[in-house]
Amino acid sequence: MKAIILFGHGARDIRWREPFDTLVSLWRAQHAAIPVELAFLEMMQPSLEEAVRSLSLQGATQITVVPVFFGQGGHLRNDFPVLLKECQTKFPQITLSASSAVGEDQAVLQAIVDFGCRAISP
Amino acid sequence: MKAIILFGHGARDIRWREPFDTLVSLWRAQHAAIPVELAFLEMMQPSLEEAVRSLSLQGATQITVVPVFFGQGGHLRNDFPVLLKECQTKFPQITLSASSAVGEDQAVLQAIVDFGCRAISP
Repeated sequence: MKAIILFGHGARDIRWREPFDTLVSLWRAQHAAIPVELAFLEMMQPSLEEAVRSLSLQGATQITVVPVFFGQGGHLRNDFPVLLKECQTKFPQITLSASSAVGEDQAVLQAIVDFGCRAISP
Repeated sequence: MKAIILFGHGARDIRWREPFDTLVSLWRAQHAAIPVELAFLEMMQPSLEEAVRSLSLQGATQITVVPVFFGQGGHLRNDFPVLLKECQTKFPQITLSASSAVGEDQAVLQAIVDFGCRAISP
């Protein structure tokens, strides 16, 4: 069974995660058959490992991790592959893969441009 | 004259800014009459003040700052309003305003959900 993890940076302020919770709600409303969990690199729970464990317990066998980051800097280029490899070692029964960051997607960038356009023309 | 600033966090790795440069290219291709500049909170140039100065020199009189952040945590709730106020004081001839963060926009979040959907169904 396929599943998805939306992987964010994390922050001290709990309100920072609101858009991530909205993403999960949207996902569940639109793709109810595919379990989703959030995971955070730091400062917020659950960790990537906890999210993989949770989805594994729900029966997931193929998990795609989607980095909800704009840019691919040190966190995604260095920290994230290490984390992913550690998780793969701990859960050998799961096929774990990762997509590019959402900020690399043209449709996401276009939505940001369109938002900016509405922001300057209220 | 209206103008827009796309305001990001910044990072040590210069490659982190690639999606921001793409946003500027998209904006210029689609909204050529409205000048755009990037600005960063930390670790990258230009600063918000430098971006406002640059747009002011290009003739901007109304500048909207769009925070290209997912969540509204300490940076946007605490640091950003202070920065914005400082800029407004330094450039009293400019009408400076800010939108909500792009991560609050339903269309941006939907584009992320759609990206995730494509990522798990290659």
